[in-house]
Amino acid sequence: MQAQDRMDPSQTLSIDAMGGDNAPRIVVDGVAEFLESRPHMKALLHGDEALLAPLMAGRSVLQARATLVHAGEKITSDMKPSQALRRGKGTSMWNAVEAIRDGKAGASVSAGNTGALMAMSMLILRKMDGVHRPAMTAVWPTLRGRTIVLDVGANVEADAQQLVSFAIMGEAFARATLAIARPSVGLLNIGSEEMKGHEEVREAHEWLRAAGLDLDYRGFIEGDDISMGMVDVVVTDGFTGNVALKTGEGVARMLASHMREAFTESLMSKAGALLAMNGLKRLKSLMDPSNVNGGVLLGLGGISVKSHGSADARGFARACEMAADLAASDFQGEIAANLAKIGTGGVAA
Amino acid sequence: MQAQDRMDPSQTLSIDAMGGDNAPRIVVDGVAEFLESRPHMKALLHGDEALLAPLMAGRSVLQARATLVHAGEKITSDMKPSQALRRGKGTSMWNAVEAIRDGKAGASVSAGNTGALMAMSMLILRKMDGVHRPAMTAVWPTLRGRTIVLDVGANVEADAQQLVSFAIMGEAFARATLAIARPSVGLLNIGSEEMKGHEEVREAHEWLRAAGLDLDYRGFIEGDDISMGMVDVVVTDGFTGNVALKTGEGVARMLASHMREAFTESLMSKAGALLAMNGLKRLKSLMDPSNVNGGVLLGLGGISVKSHGSADARGFARACEMAADLAASDFQGEIAANLAKIGTGGVAA
Repeated sequence: MQAQDRMDPSQTLSIDAMGGDNAPRIVVDGVAEFLESRPHMKALLHGDEALLAPLMAGRSVLQARATLVHAGEKITSDMKPSQALRRGKGTSMWNAVEAIRDGKAGASVSAGNTGALMAMSMLILRKMDGVHRPAMTAVWPTLRGRTIVLDVGANVEADAQQLVSFAIMGEAFARATLAIARPSVGLLNIGSEEMKGHEEVREAHEWLRAAGLDLDYRGFIEGDDISMGMVDVVVTDGFTGNVALKTGEGVARMLASHMREAFTESLMSKAGALLAMNGLKRLKSLMDPSNVNGGVLLGLGGISVKSHGSADARGFARACEMAADLAASDFQGEIAANLAKIGTGGVAA
Repeated sequence: MQAQDRMDPSQTLSIDAMGGDNAPRIVVDGVAEFLESRPHMKALLHGDEALLAPLMAGRSVLQARATLVHAGEKITSDMKPSQALRRGKGTSMWNAVEAIRDGKAGASVSAGNTGALMAMSMLILRKMDGVHRPAMTAVWPTLRGRTIVLDVGANVEADAQQLVSFAIMGEAFARATLAIARPSVGLLNIGSEEMKGHEEVREAHEWLRAAGLDLDYRGFIEGDDISMGMVDVVVTDGFTGNVALKTGEGVARMLASHMREAFTESLMSKAGALLAMNGLKRLKSLMDPSNVNGGVLLGLGGISVKSHGSADARGFARACEMAADLAASDFQGEIAANLAKIGTGGVAA
């Protein structure tokens, strides 16, 4: 480990440099891009010194504000969560998360194995008081900006109280990362008139309306409202949220493929694409997952951010920015305050 | 009722001419378009004679092959299913469905109130033997063609046996409407490694693998596989299916809106759009919901097709084509044969 003094934990990120499809190269590039855009931030880079040192050499922003922390082992993408927990100690992922618990950094970022990262984060950072189940967030690009959707797969089911706690955690998360003072919250449901959703969803709806929670609850929304940006936070169980997220990604990918075809089918259409270049570039950027990279397992005693495994350097930098925003905010305190109000089933309905 | 002899029920559709946002005009136009493309088909048009007769006047295809059946009442879009059942008798929707039960036509089509149509269809046509819960289908445009998704909202939950019956019904439906001899079937799930979905989904998976059903079951798929066209039939519960369908529609609508902006932001981009016109037209048609219009409540003793309420004439014609394909096929018989194999819980696992 290189010597480095005077690190402020809340202005330091702890990075798993070995996780992700193109690690460590894109991770190092992404951290460099992040540090350039945030001049007050520093980074710990956990990973194999023999691989990392050459990538960091001669780059002034990394030399000045990144610290290499050697870890000889790493978590592979095919490892099961249980294996990762057994053999995890000393890996770059483990060390990156452990640095949060030990107060060396304000948040960690990894593009590695999702299941392993979730399991490790829960083990090392523990659940916050009052949280029964942590929830995974996704940032969803909409017509009006961005919307937070949770849970997108940390759990397969959720009872009413868990849905209410997801609403509380998502609302504080949206305030910290979307810079919205009072984010609006909706509960995902289906529209058929006389049988509005499961019992869990209907019960959570009553709680959110009745409980004296400090949040702007707007009631039920439907699937097509997500992309319209109807609310800032969409609450659902992990099964439905995961299906919705992946289904949306699939539709976007299909349309992007059709669009590429439409603009390459003839000389005329290629010329058309050239003329409309500016608009098309903006469209491409809107559809680019790198621009909304970063998921967080909410409800833990520290901040562990998951980047897409296939993120490029820019995408990884976005995940770092989210981690930095969270580390600088009081969203953990806000969550604790609202969670205390729902107590153990003690909501006046 | 106009006199009309020698109608072959399987070559006749029974149409609710008063249902939908722009009824009866687009319904009459849609039926005319349908009859022109299917010279052997006939239609019963149920609705207000005073409104329908002028719309049908002077149009030779309608004069030759459509029969006006007067109904003085109609179901409105804000009526609850229970109201529709109480006051439904004698409405255009009721009469359209009743004509199927009475053997006057092979299938009915309505663009009216979904909940009312579902309730009425169940009451009049009854469930098939062996079906506990009917399921609503949707046709999903994919990279490879079209995929059937069910249930998209007839029920909010589904146990393992119901999921298996959805697979059986969807497979027969896909063969009849997509002209695929042996449609492949997948079960919608989430991808996390060590906890593959709810118990219901895992149990249905075992049944589909073990039971001696005559269908090409491919196992679990995830949300993004739907638009890739990974399988011909996607099986899920009504809550998840409805959320997936509406979420996908929302994403497509958002991207279409961004695309319009990209091609109108400057003179250059407008010129580009002109040059790329052919490709863009094809893209627009791929994204046009009218091209995949028509949902069916499977598992009843007759065929009742639901058109989008906002469908245009072409969209309504597509729903009629689907109804005609179903009326000409033996999909009800195929469903009955496979359902008999799962019996009442009697699958050898």
